[in-house]
Amino acid sequence: MLRTSAESHGRELGTSYGYCSLAPSHSLRLCKAKTKMTDIHSLTRRLKRSSDSKIILCVSDGIGGLPLNAGGKTELETAATPNLDQLAQRGVTGMSIPVLPGIAPGSGPGHLGLFGYDPLKYEIGRGVLEALGIDFDLGPDDVAIRGNFCTIDDDGLITDRRAGRIASEIGAKLCEKLDQIEIPGVEVFVRHVKEYRLVIVFRGEGLGGNINDTDPQRTGVLPLRPEGSDAPSEKTAGICTQFLEQAKAVLKDDAPANLLTMRGIAKRPPIPTFEEVYGTRAAAIAVYPMYRGLARLVGMDVLDAGATLDDQMACLKAHWNDYDFFFIHFKYTDSTGEDGNFDGKVERIQDLDAAVPQMTALNPDVLIVTGDHSTPAKMKSHSGHPVPTLLVADHCRFDGSQTYGESVCRVGELGYFEAKYLMLQALAHAGRLDKFGA
Amino acid sequence: MLRTSAESHGRELGTSYGYCSLAPSHSLRLCKAKTKMTDIHSLTRRLKRSSDSKIILCVSDGIGGLPLNAGGKTELETAATPNLDQLAQRGVTGMSIPVLPGIAPGSGPGHLGLFGYDPLKYEIGRGVLEALGIDFDLGPDDVAIRGNFCTIDDDGLITDRRAGRIASEIGAKLCEKLDQIEIPGVEVFVRHVKEYRLVIVFRGEGLGGNINDTDPQRTGVLPLRPEGSDAPSEKTAGICTQFLEQAKAVLKDDAPANLLTMRGIAKRPPIPTFEEVYGTRAAAIAVYPMYRGLARLVGMDVLDAGATLDDQMACLKAHWNDYDFFFIHFKYTDSTGEDGNFDGKVERIQDLDAAVPQMTALNPDVLIVTGDHSTPAKMKSHSGHPVPTLLVADHCRFDGSQTYGESVCRVGELGYFEAKYLMLQALAHAGRLDKFGA
Repeated sequence: MLRTSAESHGRELGTSYGYCSLAPSHSLRLCKAKTKMTDIHSLTRRLKRSSDSKIILCVSDGIGGLPLNAGGKTELETAATPNLDQLAQRGVTGMSIPVLPGIAPGSGPGHLGLFGYDPLKYEIGRGVLEALGIDFDLGPDDVAIRGNFCTIDDDGLITDRRAGRIASEIGAKLCEKLDQIEIPGVEVFVRHVKEYRLVIVFRGEGLGGNINDTDPQRTGVLPLRPEGSDAPSEKTAGICTQFLEQAKAVLKDDAPANLLTMRGIAKRPPIPTFEEVYGTRAAAIAVYPMYRGLARLVGMDVLDAGATLDDQMACLKAHWNDYDFFFIHFKYTDSTGEDGNFDGKVERIQDLDAAVPQMTALNPDVLIVTGDHSTPAKMKSHSGHPVPTLLVADHCRFDGSQTYGESVCRVGELGYFEAKYLMLQALAHAGRLDKFGA
Repeated sequence: MLRTSAESHGRELGTSYGYCSLAPSHSLRLCKAKTKMTDIHSLTRRLKRSSDSKIILCVSDGIGGLPLNAGGKTELETAATPNLDQLAQRGVTGMSIPVLPGIAPGSGPGHLGLFGYDPLKYEIGRGVLEALGIDFDLGPDDVAIRGNFCTIDDDGLITDRRAGRIASEIGAKLCEKLDQIEIPGVEVFVRHVKEYRLVIVFRGEGLGGNINDTDPQRTGVLPLRPEGSDAPSEKTAGICTQFLEQAKAVLKDDAPANLLTMRGIAKRPPIPTFEEVYGTRAAAIAVYPMYRGLARLVGMDVLDAGATLDDQMACLKAHWNDYDFFFIHFKYTDSTGEDGNFDGKVERIQDLDAAVPQMTALNPDVLIVTGDHSTPAKMKSHSGHPVPTLLVADHCRFDGSQTYGESVCRVGELGYFEAKYLMLQALAHAGRLDKFGA
């Protein structure tokens, strides 16, 4: 009977593993013999162990950097980080490879990796991320689209792909108008995100999510026609076309925002939750929508905190007894890197450093500080360089790291590892994993 | 139409990815939504970006070595390499694992790994390499065989597996005679390689490539009988047998070369080209046939240079504007290692060092120096030790390496990496990869 349940569970998730509850031990052994280990989560499902231990995963977005010149220091190495350095001395360091060597990830794959989900296996469309990020309750059959208000001229040619970056108040009002659009056979939701950005969701039966962007990525041309690459997606593409036609009529007097483009059209992929695969009650304390959305996608509760790091720390403290796992996201090391602002990034790292004592004061069993990728100010973009990482726990094999920086992490105890394995280290150091095999 | 092509392409290679060309961008985005990432090349096909940047991959065959005694220096560490050391100071270092830890590769898998082709997935038979290396235009259905002239006695027992290492002129004439052999239902090609070595190709329908070597690897015994391990290969084995019978008659008066053995009987595997998977126009500057053949197998143009390193450098300079990617192969660090000639290998490394300024003078965007494997003089053979590697580019995370040698590379920024990922680093540092995901 157990096996039947196990097998059906495996099928639900579209994988080949069987699911085992931990008791009774006889059945466990039966299952163990049958289970095929195909990925990280088939392992953690089997080995996960309940515990009172608490884990903090503090992600400083894009924290990895580059020296401006040979022999120089990176942003992280330049920053004065007494608290992070103390963590490095109390723990171990290493280098996280977000996806594969050299590959620069976007925020989606960068975070999925840190959460232990193979970013090459789980691909999340941009529309889905945006929808999750505004707390939209996205169902498994919904198609989510990121919209950008744009300006078209009398011939329909795009003259501004961001509609003059209209104010958020204007964008919000236009979304209310668009939300009135009705299309037979589907529910239509239009929600404002920020400035010229919005989310459109179509809810209905048999909709596919494989449709091209309509944003031509340049001005002076018509928007692209939405086309589906399979029958269900053709159906969605037809709905997109109807929506855009109605939107054109609705927005005709609203220049510069007199149309919108559609991007990242996608459905939510089936993805198991933290609770399922790790047995943790997980919470996210993130300010920016996309990271809140990513956390929600893997089943974390997204907590409401203010916009500052101190707000986030206060939120952490307030909910300390409610969860086992906390994902804290700090955005500004990435945005300063993207701006090419080396000194600014150094300052933001120092801001993060200043917040560290509020985390350590809670005595987490495992505290990890890392990034989802590197964003060197020198490159003004995400890069594929490995990401300096530190982990503090009682059972660390202390490696003599004296500071938290790239040069130290390069030779630390954690070695170079694919980000998707970091959760195993977190769980292991938190005493949340059984031994594998007899 | 794109999808159909994509899917059939994916099937050909036995993977699940879809193929995207970069243009038109509409199709790319369409594909992006659908593609499942299962391997390196499904990733690079999607992320490859056109660029004017230029990459040099300089492979010093078997460059990795061993100290003769504990506490000693390797060949590379013993050599005076001021130019390579300067590169290490300008770049980053690391250790390449050719296949898996401890595994000593042959030249085929060693190079395929460096080219970014998983050597455990793409296995290239020796016969195929030999055929490609003599510019034989091998079709997808041809079976290629490496032949060795040998000496047999009156009882048919092998007395010399290399026929007294006959001169190349003799070998060439005997191959002309063998090329006259006719076998019903197949075309037969016999081509001389060098001294006692030749290539035989059978071209015909339904031939398999899974047949044992007939070389018994020792003297005083009969050659082994060719046997196929599946029906199409049984057919080929029968043709091999017919060929060998006729060859015995043709060569009966040509002692010491009065027969031949067959080795590495194989078909060319389906393998995508550099252009397909990386979007680069690639050229090889290699002297020895096998390396030229390997380069041709992945779609590189094989350039004609003289036999010296200076000739190779002159060729590089002459064709600098014609290609994006240059594979330069330097053989003598391997051959001296194979000979157990520690000092000779040190000298050959110094020869390579002396050629470095001719590469840097061209200002490549990425310059990599590595080996396909280690060939420690102490072992007189290929070994499974990781291979010291350096990479120089503007966006390196300079790691303080002062010299190019095993001890330095062990703690360099590139870490320990499987050779198959080196191309990702090359492309990333050359600005030839887009970000993965949003």
